[in-house]
Amino acid sequence: MATATTQATFRCYELGEFGIDSLAIKDRQATNLKPSEVLVKVHAVSLNFRDLMMVMGRYNPKMKLPFTPCSDGSGTVVEVGSDVKKFKAGDRVMAAFMPDWTAGKLHEDAGRSALGGGGTGMLAEQVILPEHGLVHIPNHLSFEEAATLPCAAVTAWNALIESGNLRPGETVLTLGTGGVSIFAIQFALMNGCDIIATSGSDAKLARLKEMGVTKTINYKTTPDWSKEVLKLTGNRGVDHVVEVGGAGTLDHSLKSTALAGHVAVIGVLSGVQTDLNPRLILMKNIRVQGIFVGSRQMFENMNRAIEQHKLKPVIDKVFPFEQAIDALKWMESGSHFGKIVINVSK
Amino acid sequence: MATATTQATFRCYELGEFGIDSLAIKDRQATNLKPSEVLVKVHAVSLNFRDLMMVMGRYNPKMKLPFTPCSDGSGTVVEVGSDVKKFKAGDRVMAAFMPDWTAGKLHEDAGRSALGGGGTGMLAEQVILPEHGLVHIPNHLSFEEAATLPCAAVTAWNALIESGNLRPGETVLTLGTGGVSIFAIQFALMNGCDIIATSGSDAKLARLKEMGVTKTINYKTTPDWSKEVLKLTGNRGVDHVVEVGGAGTLDHSLKSTALAGHVAVIGVLSGVQTDLNPRLILMKNIRVQGIFVGSRQMFENMNRAIEQHKLKPVIDKVFPFEQAIDALKWMESGSHFGKIVINVSK
Amino acid sequence: MATATTQATFRCYELGEFGIDSLAIKDRQATNLKPSEVLVKVHAVSLNFRDLMMVMGRYNPKMKLPFTPCSDGSGTVVEVGSDVKKFKAGDRVMAAFMPDWTAGKLHEDAGRSALGGGGTGMLAEQVILPEHGLVHIPNHLSFEEAATLPCAAVTAWNALIESGNLRPGETVLTLGTGGVSIFAIQFALMNGCDIIATSGSDAKLARLKEMGVTKTINYKTTPDWSKEVLKLTGNRGVDHVVEVGGAGTLDHSLKSTALAGHVAVIGVLSGVQTDLNPRLILMKNIRVQGIFVGSRQMFENMNRAIEQHKLKPVIDKVFPFEQAIDALKWMESGSHFGKIVINVSK
Amino acid sequence: MATATTQATFRCYELGEFGIDSLAIKDRQATNLKPSEVLVKVHAVSLNFRDLMMVMGRYNPKMKLPFTPCSDGSGTVVEVGSDVKKFKAGDRVMAAFMPDWTAGKLHEDAGRSALGGGGTGMLAEQVILPEHGLVHIPNHLSFEEAATLPCAAVTAWNALIESGNLRPGETVLTLGTGGVSIFAIQFALMNGCDIIATSGSDAKLARLKEMGVTKTINYKTTPDWSKEVLKLTGNRGVDHVVEVGGAGTLDHSLKSTALAGHVAVIGVLSGVQTDLNPRLILMKNIRVQGIFVGSRQMFENMNRAIEQHKLKPVIDKVFPFEQAIDALKWMESGSHFGKIVINVSK
Repeated sequence: MATATTQATFRCYELGEFGIDSLAIKDRQATNLKPSEVLVKVHAVSLNFRDLMMVMGRYNPKMKLPFTPCSDGSGTVVEVGSDVKKFKAGDRVMAAFMPDWTAGKLHEDAGRSALGGGGTGMLAEQVILPEHGLVHIPNHLSFEEAATLPCAAVTAWNALIESGNLRPGETVLTLGTGGVSIFAIQFALMNGCDIIATSGSDAKLARLKEMGVTKTINYKTTPDWSKEVLKLTGNRGVDHVVEVGGAGTLDHSLKSTALAGHVAVIGVLSGVQTDLNPRLILMKNIRVQGIFVGSRQMFENMNRAIEQHKLKPVIDKVFPFEQAIDALKWMESGSHFGKIVINVSK
Repeated sequence: MATATTQATFRCYELGEFGIDSLAIKDRQATNLKPSEVLVKVHAVSLNFRDLMMVMGRYNPKMKLPFTPCSDGSGTVVEVGSDVKKFKAGDRVMAAFMPDWTAGKLHEDAGRSALGGGGTGMLAEQVILPEHGLVHIPNHLSFEEAATLPCAAVTAWNALIESGNLRPGETVLTLGTGGVSIFAIQFALMNGCDIIATSGSDAKLARLKEMGVTKTINYKTTPDWSKEVLKLTGNRGVDHVVEVGGAGTLDHSLKSTALAGHVAVIGVLSGVQTDLNPRLILMKNIRVQGIFVGSRQMFENMNRAIEQHKLKPVIDKVFPFEQAIDALKWMESGSHFGKIVINVSK
Repeated sequence: MATATTQATFRCYELGEFGIDSLAIKDRQATNLKPSEVLVKVHAVSLNFRDLMMVMGRYNPKMKLPFTPCSDGSGTVVEVGSDVKKFKAGDRVMAAFMPDWTAGKLHEDAGRSALGGGGTGMLAEQVILPEHGLVHIPNHLSFEEAATLPCAAVTAWNALIESGNLRPGETVLTLGTGGVSIFAIQFALMNGCDIIATSGSDAKLARLKEMGVTKTINYKTTPDWSKEVLKLTGNRGVDHVVEVGGAGTLDHSLKSTALAGHVAVIGVLSGVQTDLNPRLILMKNIRVQGIFVGSRQMFENMNRAIEQHKLKPVIDKVFPFEQAIDALKWMESGSHFGKIVINVSK
Repeated sequence: MATATTQATFRCYELGEFGIDSLAIKDRQATNLKPSEVLVKVHAVSLNFRDLMMVMGRYNPKMKLPFTPCSDGSGTVVEVGSDVKKFKAGDRVMAAFMPDWTAGKLHEDAGRSALGGGGTGMLAEQVILPEHGLVHIPNHLSFEEAATLPCAAVTAWNALIESGNLRPGETVLTLGTGGVSIFAIQFALMNGCDIIATSGSDAKLARLKEMGVTKTINYKTTPDWSKEVLKLTGNRGVDHVVEVGGAGTLDHSLKSTALAGHVAVIGVLSGVQTDLNPRLILMKNIRVQGIFVGSRQMFENMNRAIEQHKLKPVIDKVFPFEQAIDALKWMESGSHFGKIVINVSK
């Protein structure tokens, strides 16, 4: 691996006004490292729905302009501050979604440190991050693959493994083929679970079957899909739902859930209000658990599993740095299956 | 204590058609005991909102007619089947809300065994119950007091202690002055927690203060009460909400909740749909946990705490057996503070 | 499947004085069913180390004589009591190790109901059991295979999945090739975990490798095996130990355990005292968890996983009913790999 | 409060060779603050048994000489680094026992950061600590009182509240009247629990009764004290043991524990081996949990409870800075009841 070197100026994307087409490349001056900081040359970035919403000005709360978007990236350590112990120049690293959420329960400072949300954004040739916000990349993963993990994979891992305490023999319901859902399927398979997956496309359902999902539902041809879920589970319902849908799907998800089951609420696919009948939550003793990505300790736990299983993230398409606008538009189209990646530099 | 004796016929209430005024006293024949059953002479019954909904025909699913209402009662063992080991004639007992939910996770058979829901109803002079569905009454409690525990107290205990893992230093938010909320306040005080309690009546808030609640909010004069909750907690929010309100309060409850907080959804005070923005659940990592009363093992755990603390349930008013209709109408009026009890027999 | 029919008299083993050779077949009269009971024709029984200890008079507390040994068996329902709902004649069933531990935490009544411990013993052509102490046999399992589950498999499941909250990416250490250890390996593989397994025989280690265990240690040629465990885990230690050894191995197990790791103490392979330095438990924040088989709810959870994965128990050898003494002596020799089964009837 | 100011040189204790009498006061030069560091003027330090063992050379592993002892201290912020956000000059603070264990599970880096263990020791007039290793002092506590919290109080809190999930109605057993045991009693009382406390002195037992402990045992006059514990609990045993004794008490503690109970192993009161029969752990499903102090997040959770309850630590005796040797000898004598404090500066 070629050693990365510091650049006095570097390129990064900046959004001056809301709208995908307003994204533009700027030159920025490098700043000095503090003792606990690490300078990282970014090689790849992956997109999340949150990035799209922020760029379009639909995220709540609305972003202050200008800002550099994107939370998920991977790269090479160029230089480390004098107190840094775990990393050295040349190390391959990923950035934790919230660098200041190292472990334990979510706290306010953690939330404020989320990348791509006003402070550091990863859609840049280089970034400075605190040592405690970095993790090593599993050996078998490329930079493109590693870039997909910080938000989507950690969210799926937290939903099912950390918060969900997934067990073999349980059934997991996933919705659609976005990044979180695909990772959730991979982790549920790794954990010896049964999976029911939905999609609006038979072609995508066919790809899910190739991944090892045996039970699938096309929610377009089966709009009343919770009934099908109950049928597929002998009327018992599923133990876990990875609920990425938000409005419109939550009611179906609750109907699909077993007694004492677990619904991990992840979706910001829609920011609007949804009708909800709390009676089902009550009568079925359901746990509806909000999942906001996860801590660095969760990220490291996940990486051990990914490394052990040589798990490969599912990448939909890789765009060059100069085509970040096209990448966001591709996400907007909803045509993807897995993660969309931007190659920042070699 | 006078020994109770078997009666060949006994009186019980029965509902022939929906409506409080349709409740009528009938005579019924005693039946034989199976080896694992216990015959109990009922001394007192307490009312829950569920009983009122069932009698009015507003419970979902609707009851089959005719039926004997009420889940909560206490009495004296009259006779035991040949296999019964834990109880003998003369023992003071309470019935578990779901006799077949002895321990562990809620399961379907448990739900079907709920008292007052079509099978055995407690508004009767005597009932036959399985040994595994009974618990002993703490020594310091009267039959009237004991009758208040099976549904409301176990629900509050499950919400805060079993499912909520309440800890000293945490803050609990309660809504109104119904049975569950009053028990929740008593358990939170017992557990060394801070409490914020709401009510629409200053007179009731004054009574809560006498119980030891230091922070109260009148939700009529402060309709935007979640802001007041945030103010009272230094903008941190509460760790637990005992959400008995259903539609209309859930949104305020979520706004009142701290990061990684817990909202125990209990309320069937309203069966209608509610608007819900799942974004708050997600962004604050909130756990929304449905609570459907609890198991016999939880009931026994609770009784150990009640006995140790010599806790006294708050009884609003005691009605004689013949005035069960008045008792239900009193609950319908919403004027009560704590539990409404019917004295079935001496 | 031929329908089993009631026999007025049936054969069972009985121990009149301690010692394997004292086991003898007796004729016994059938008794009447109570409403909640089920009559089961036993097809197969499996042996556990506890059975051997009990027969040899080395179990603590010592058994009262005479008694019928064995806790683990499978068979066909012959007849059900009038209240039985979940089973009907012809159903294939297994007996829960403690029929009265249905769910939740271990309680005293549960312990007293353990089969083969003085009350009902399974080494008999037919047994009467309470409905709540039976579970259905997964379809893909034979009676011989099913007979291996109640004690050894549930113990391994409880240790790793229920109590251990096993997660993909974690490492599990197993000791030897007895029934519990082999099931633990199967569940850990099912759960996506890494395994380090020890044995004193290279031939057995080779068989473990065939099962998918990649890291093995011969504790005879590597007596200081905890050092090898640390080496194999990059000095991190394992997350879980299934500690079946008792005296002599516990200290090594603690040395092998990671920070905040979990040691499930199962072994009654030796009833004697062991030296223990609690400093390691303290400094490494280790959880040492006693595991005494498990509840029926755990048994059912396990069966869902076994069914889904079509998991096949590893049977060492099957003996005919008449050779139960040989079967126990085979266990005593320690030569087995997996479970020893006795075929009671066709 | 007078504002503390930086001193170019300051006094601290240093141990040149093992032995209490070898402790000596030295002058040291102040060093510069890094961006994330905080300079604290120390006002008070409290002693733990670990400090005594380290100074005497009996701690395992043995300390490298020379070193400055003591982990627990409180003081005033003098100056903060440029990145520090939560503290400002004048703030009253305590140091977390392991500054680098902020939250989540114990990890290796955390262990290495323990104060008084070779790096920073608190028995000094000023110390430099990372922002993430400091917590605010509850308003109602003096510096002397605050200095008692970091090790003993957090250990007791972790044992009972974080790891133990203490619930009202449960019974807690404490051993002796050292700092951890006294805090455990205070937290158990705060949490609405029943307590059984042992001591070898009737005078100390009398003081425990004044604190609200109703059940006490003199282990000198009742050497077989586990039998007395069983008697006091109606043969049920206790739910939690705060096991500070180590060798000699662990066996009694296990005998005193209820089915599915919890023994928090804390004690380094004796570093030697102990005999242990794992059969009790197994048959009673006991959880033996090693507790090594706790994280900063636990410390903050505890402080909320302490603040809410206006809990006052029990201070045995306060020594001036110059008499640190006497303070350690006083601890060695074992005569104390609660915490021993050294007043470092006004």
